Amino acid sequence: MSAIEELALEFAKLPGIGRKTAMRLTYHLLKQPPEASKRLAGALATLSERVHPCGTCGNLTETATCAICTDPRRDASLLCVVEDASDISAIERSGEFRGTYHVLGGRLSPLDGVGPDDLAVEPLKRRVAMGDVREVIVATNPSLEGDATAVWLQRELAASGVSVTRIARGLPVGGDLEYADVVTIAQALSARRVMA
Amino acid sequence: MSAIEELALEFAKLPGIGRKTAMRLTYHLLKQPPEASKRLAGALATLSERVHPCGTCGNLTETATCAICTDPRRDASLLCVVEDASDISAIERSGEFRGTYHVLGGRLSPLDGVGPDDLAVEPLKRRVAMGDVREVIVATNPSLEGDATAVWLQRELAASGVSVTRIARGLPVGGDLEYADVVTIAQALSARRVMA
Repeated sequence: MSAIEELALEFAKLPGIGRKTAMRLTYHLLKQPPEASKRLAGALATLSERVHPCGTCGNLTETATCAICTDPRRDASLLCVVEDASDISAIERSGEFRGTYHVLGGRLSPLDGVGPDDLAVEPLKRRVAMGDVREVIVATNPSLEGDATAVWLQRELAASGVSVTRIARGLPVGGDLEYADVVTIAQALSARRVMA
Repeated sequence: MSAIEELALEFAKLPGIGRKTAMRLTYHLLKQPPEASKRLAGALATLSERVHPCGTCGNLTETATCAICTDPRRDASLLCVVEDASDISAIERSGEFRGTYHVLGGRLSPLDGVGPDDLAVEPLKRRVAMGDVREVIVATNPSLEGDATAVWLQRELAASGVSVTRIARGLPVGGDLEYADVVTIAQALSARRVMA
């Protein structure tokens, strides 16, 4: 196989990148100075060597414990449970959350063979049992499986006496009633709040 | 900068990949075994070392002369001029062309500062002057600049007496009259052919 086909093949393995885009990316790099490909190659090579899960929350980090867990200004009594580490950066970008996180490592998904034993619920229970946690916010995705996982988590944590909450559902900011799906509209209506 | 941010930054430099997609690709690779990133890194690193332009036509190749130029079954009297080497693989996929190619290295674009001296027209003239070329098919893109480049090429080659043709324009296969732009429809009409 030629070097061009080889690189295009590797690009095409990435999510959302088809054969044509993979070729376009490859030809783009061929038009750039060789340093462009080399920098990308270097960043890829060091990625898996430097990055691993945080020993406390499961967030991806280059240190033993991640920057959020070690930050004394973060509220450790507020624990936000997410499916994946990538969800943490999405929430962090909102700048609204000052608590800490716990990465579940997925969601209950019988069809994909993901059961309770595949998710990091025991480490979560241990963190809650240590007594410092006041509230667990379940921020699994607002999907069927994410919701089922939330209900299951709530039951798992019920004995501990901690308060378990779920992120709100409703119309997204900038959304349009006309184009919203009926389930979202129904949820936005039933979760309506008194205006201050 | 963290290894994650570094890789996302490099991904985001690629065409059509924004900040969010770059992050998604990075997190995807973090979920894969390290070999996935390493294979992509390897393909990137060897790309610029192994690939360079063909000495005859300018196509990208790993040998001194490309596989098309050295293929004795290709018709060397038929020369297809393209803007970029990536256009060659697009035409090759159609399986319709059995001649050879010449890569111009771009198109006339005064706004981008690309003039006649930046395009490989002198090597093209030399190939034509050698007398083996019967027809030059100008396959620059059907854009304003591609068309201007085609007219300019036709004038440059007029003295050589070689036949200069332009790829046909019209409605694309599977296209829909209702959604076609007016210029394409006008060209499809004026270039109509008698049905056999």
